[in-house]
Amino acid sequence: MLEVKGIQNGIVIDHIKAGNGLKIFNKLLSEHIDSPVVLLMNVDSKALGKKDIIKLADVFDIDLDILGLIDHNITVNIVRDSKITDKRKANIPEEVTGLFNCINPRCITNSDAYAVPKFKLYEMNGSAEYICSYCEEITKYRL
Amino acid sequence: MLEVKGIQNGIVIDHIKAGNGLKIFNKLLSEHIDSPVVLLMNVDSKALGKKDIIKLADVFDIDLDILGLIDHNITVNIVRDSKITDKRKANIPEEVTGLFNCINPRCITNSDAYAVPKFKLYEMNGSAEYICSYCEEITKYRL
Repeated sequence: MLEVKGIQNGIVIDHIKAGNGLKIFNKLLSEHIDSPVVLLMNVDSKALGKKDIIKLADVFDIDLDILGLIDHNITVNIVRDSKITDKRKANIPEEVTGLFNCINPRCITNSDAYAVPKFKLYEMNGSAEYICSYCEEITKYRL
Repeated sequence: MLEVKGIQNGIVIDHIKAGNGLKIFNKLLSEHIDSPVVLLMNVDSKALGKKDIIKLADVFDIDLDILGLIDHNITVNIVRDSKITDKRKANIPEEVTGLFNCINPRCITNSDAYAVPKFKLYEMNGSAEYICSYCEEITKYRL
């Protein structure tokens, strides 16, 4: 078994669907490139069969909206002095500003640099479907 | 400290210069995407200050030439039944076939699909410099 001792201060992102760990790391954590990080991939999980885990020895304000978009089953534990002080679940955000582009090539957000994409959650159908606040097209979020 | 318990059967790639771990993983190991892997980044090292480590719970014939090109200080330990059965150092290869392209855009290897790039080690100058067996241009290997 590949086990990792606890970190003293930092963030543990757990219950990541196997295969998403690296994507999350590249999307969210590449700015924290100087902190010690452990990325476990394809380790056993009772709940998921296989999972990825990220342990980062650095505390920062992690964007739960982005995490929720990528994988809404993810849990985030904040660790201080080797104790879990905060447990959060990444939920699918109801409203999203920026983060991804509208699927409609004729939407103003894809031509006007000042029009920031804005979406409302439309439906959860395997992956999250969002309706554009400008052109009302449905964009299926894909990582 | 982020420590990882030993693996029972697999490969440990150690003494990776901090920052190269992810590159090595992407270049060499993305085919072994189903095996449990731990990628430690920016962990403390007596020898290097900071280092990356990869632990893979899968035994396969790892290409030491590619590893040597990326980072010649890397060590590779083969683990079986929780014991290290083989210790290897990744050296800079004297001769390389394929793996990277000749820097000369007019070299035949860059236009003829059947001409496979072939190099001999010319000099070690920070990064490895190779002379092309076809056109004799010097290519500095960069990851």
